[in-house]
Amino acid sequence: MIADFEYGTPTKLIFGKGVVARLPEVLAQYGKTVLMTYGGGSIKKIGLYDKVKALLKDFTVIELADIEPNPKYDPSVVTGARLCKEHNVDVILAVGGGSVLDCSKAIAACAMYEGDGWTLISGEDEAKSALPIVDILTLAATGSEYDAGAVISNTALKDKRPFHSPYVYPAVSFLDPEYTYSVSPWQTACGTADAINHVLEQFFASPHSMFNDGVMISALRSLMENVKLALAKPDDYSARSELMYVCSWGCNGILSNGSGYSGWPMHSIEHALSAYFDITHGAGLAIITPRWMQEILSERTVERFVTLGVELFGFDKELSPFVLAEKVITAFYDFFLSIGIPMHLSEVGVKEDAIEEMAEHILKLDQTDGPWMYVPLDKPALVRILKASM
Amino acid sequence: MIADFEYGTPTKLIFGKGVVARLPEVLAQYGKTVLMTYGGGSIKKIGLYDKVKALLKDFTVIELADIEPNPKYDPSVVTGARLCKEHNVDVILAVGGGSVLDCSKAIAACAMYEGDGWTLISGEDEAKSALPIVDILTLAATGSEYDAGAVISNTALKDKRPFHSPYVYPAVSFLDPEYTYSVSPWQTACGTADAINHVLEQFFASPHSMFNDGVMISALRSLMENVKLALAKPDDYSARSELMYVCSWGCNGILSNGSGYSGWPMHSIEHALSAYFDITHGAGLAIITPRWMQEILSERTVERFVTLGVELFGFDKELSPFVLAEKVITAFYDFFLSIGIPMHLSEVGVKEDAIEEMAEHILKLDQTDGPWMYVPLDKPALVRILKASM
Repeated sequence: MIADFEYGTPTKLIFGKGVVARLPEVLAQYGKTVLMTYGGGSIKKIGLYDKVKALLKDFTVIELADIEPNPKYDPSVVTGARLCKEHNVDVILAVGGGSVLDCSKAIAACAMYEGDGWTLISGEDEAKSALPIVDILTLAATGSEYDAGAVISNTALKDKRPFHSPYVYPAVSFLDPEYTYSVSPWQTACGTADAINHVLEQFFASPHSMFNDGVMISALRSLMENVKLALAKPDDYSARSELMYVCSWGCNGILSNGSGYSGWPMHSIEHALSAYFDITHGAGLAIITPRWMQEILSERTVERFVTLGVELFGFDKELSPFVLAEKVITAFYDFFLSIGIPMHLSEVGVKEDAIEEMAEHILKLDQTDGPWMYVPLDKPALVRILKASM
Repeated sequence: MIADFEYGTPTKLIFGKGVVARLPEVLAQYGKTVLMTYGGGSIKKIGLYDKVKALLKDFTVIELADIEPNPKYDPSVVTGARLCKEHNVDVILAVGGGSVLDCSKAIAACAMYEGDGWTLISGEDEAKSALPIVDILTLAATGSEYDAGAVISNTALKDKRPFHSPYVYPAVSFLDPEYTYSVSPWQTACGTADAINHVLEQFFASPHSMFNDGVMISALRSLMENVKLALAKPDDYSARSELMYVCSWGCNGILSNGSGYSGWPMHSIEHALSAYFDITHGAGLAIITPRWMQEILSERTVERFVTLGVELFGFDKELSPFVLAEKVITAFYDFFLSIGIPMHLSEVGVKEDAIEEMAEHILKLDQTDGPWMYVPLDKPALVRILKASM
C-alpha cells in the first residue's frame, strides 16, 4: 500500500572520485561571486580548501569559516547573510558536513529576506526565495546535501529548530567518498547512527509499503555493515561510498513516500538534548533509539519490530512477535555500542536533573503528544525514555 | 561499492486518490494553452476525459487523440509538434500510459525545433529546449512519467529509437492508482513485465552496490507479488498503488546509481521485435528474459543469479551457484507464464525467418557487441537468444 504523497527533489548529485574538478563549470551557471562556507578547518587538513581555492581562481570568493557543529543562528547565519548582502553574492558553496550545509541553507534564505532572519528559521514567516547552493560533502551523515531542511540552534533562546523551504534544496551536491577517509572513528560512527535513525524514524509508521520496507531495510543493512568496514579501514572506498550514498537518502522523503507520517519522535527528543547540552547529534540519537523502541512497543507496533527482526537481522520468524521485538531492541543497542558509541546519556554530559525541563521543552516545540504521531509521547513517556537513556 | 554517477530527476510526483483535482493550479504555472494528448479512447471509457475537460474549462485545450501503442513519429509526433506551433501551446498535458507520455516528450522537443524533428529523435541533433509536460498516468509500466526518455517508432524506416533529453522530464506527474483499475489483465501483466525487465536490465551489471541490490530486489518482489493481487482483484488499491509507484522508478537511473552500465540488452532486442512485428513491448521482454539469462550465464555472471535466487526467491543458499542460476531462470519463465504471458515469440506473431535480419538490425542500431556491455552480444548470440525464444 502506497499512501498519498507529493515528492520531488531537484538536487543533482555528482558522485565519484575527483568529481570536484567540475566545480568551476557548475558554479559559473550561477555567477561569479561565491560565499564559501566551511567549519573548523578539517577541509584545510585534507587539502580540500587549497584545491577549491585553486579551482575558483576566476571567481570572487568571500569566506565564512568556523561554522559550529549544531550551527548557531548567531553568529554564523547572521554573519553569512550579511556577507551575502554586502558582496552581492550569487551562489553559496558549502564545503563540509551537515552543519555547514544546514547553516548555508539558512544563510541562503536569510540573505534574500529583509526582516529578522530568525523569523524565517523559526517558521513565523516563510521564505519566498533563496540563493542557490552548491556543496562539496565531507561527512556522510545528515543527508542535508539532498534535502530541503536544516537544523539551526539559537543559543540565546535554548532553541534548536528544524527549518524547511523548497528553495534551499542544493542545486548540485558533489559527493567524493575520498573526502571522508579522514573522518574520525567517532564522527564516522555518529554520522552513521544519524542516518540509521533517519531510516528508523520513517520505518516506524503506518501505513507502510512492501516496496519501501525493502528499500529501508536495504539502507539499514548497508549502513550497518559498511560502517564496520570503514571503521576497520578508513580508506575503504567501497564502504565509504556506500555510506555516503545511503546517508544522502535519509531526509528528503524518498524513503517514506507511500508511508504514513511518523512524527520523527527521536529527533524531537535529541534536538532538546543537544540544545541543552550541545552533544553530538548522532550519539544522542543512538542512545535514545533502543529506549524509544522499548517505550513504543505494543500489540499495534510489534509488526514493525518483527519485520526488522526477520528481514534485517535474520532472526527466526517462528519466534513470538514480542520475543523478536526484544531481540531487535537489544541488537540495535549492541550494534551502536560495537561502533564506539557510549550508550548512556550520562557518558556524553547530559545531566539527569534537566530531564523534566527538557520533556516540557520537547512538548512545547514539537508537540510529540499530537494525534499525528505514530505513537504519541506525552510528558511521562518522554521522561521515561530520557531516564532509561541515562 | 558505489560506482561514479550523476543523477537528478526534477519531476514532481503527486500520488494518491483524487490528486487530479489539483490539475488547474499546476497547469496554470505554465500558461493557458494546453495540448492534451491521449490514446485510443480508454480515458473516455473511465470518465477521465470528461473530468479533465471539466477541470480545464478556463484553459484553451487543443487535442491530439489516437496516439498509437509503440507511438509513431508520423503521424503522431509530427502532428503534435505542428499543433503546438500553430496554437502557441504553453504546456503539454499527456493523459495515458507510456506511449502517450513518450509521444508527448517527442512532441515537446520537436515543437521547439526548427528542423526536421526526426533529426532530434534519431540523435543526429540535440534538443536545446522543450515545452513543459504535465501528465496523468493511467498505466503502470514504462516509468516514462519519471524519466527523460522516450521510444519512438518510425514505420517508414523500420526504426524504433530511444530518445533522451534532460528537457523532457515531466514537470509534474499525477499518479492516481484508481485510474489503473480498468487496465486489462493483458496490459497489467505486460506493463509489470516491462517494469520487472527495467530492474533486471540494471541488476545485471558490474560493479554493483549492496544498497542498490536490496532496492532492486525489493522492487522485483513488490512487482511480482502485487501484479498477482491486481490480476485477482483489479480494484485492489494497495496492489495497484505499489505497482504504480514501483514502475515509476524503472528508468530514471535511480536504481542503477552506483552500478555499472549494463547496456540494456533485452531492450535492444525487444525494440527490434516490436519495430518488425509491432508486438506488445512487455510481452516481448518477458519472452526474451529467460533466454537472455541462459545466454549470459557464466562463471563471471553467476553471482548475480545467486543473489536473485537467495534474496528474491528464497532458494537454499547452500545450493551450487549454477543450480541456483538455473532455478532463477526457470522461476522467471514460470512467473511470466503464470501472469498470462505466452512464453514463445511465435505465439505473439513473430516469424522465425526474420531473425537474421533482426539480429543485424540490433547490431547496427545498438551495437550490443560493444565492450561497454555487461555481456557483449554478437550476431550468433543474438540469433541464439531469438531462436530460443521462438
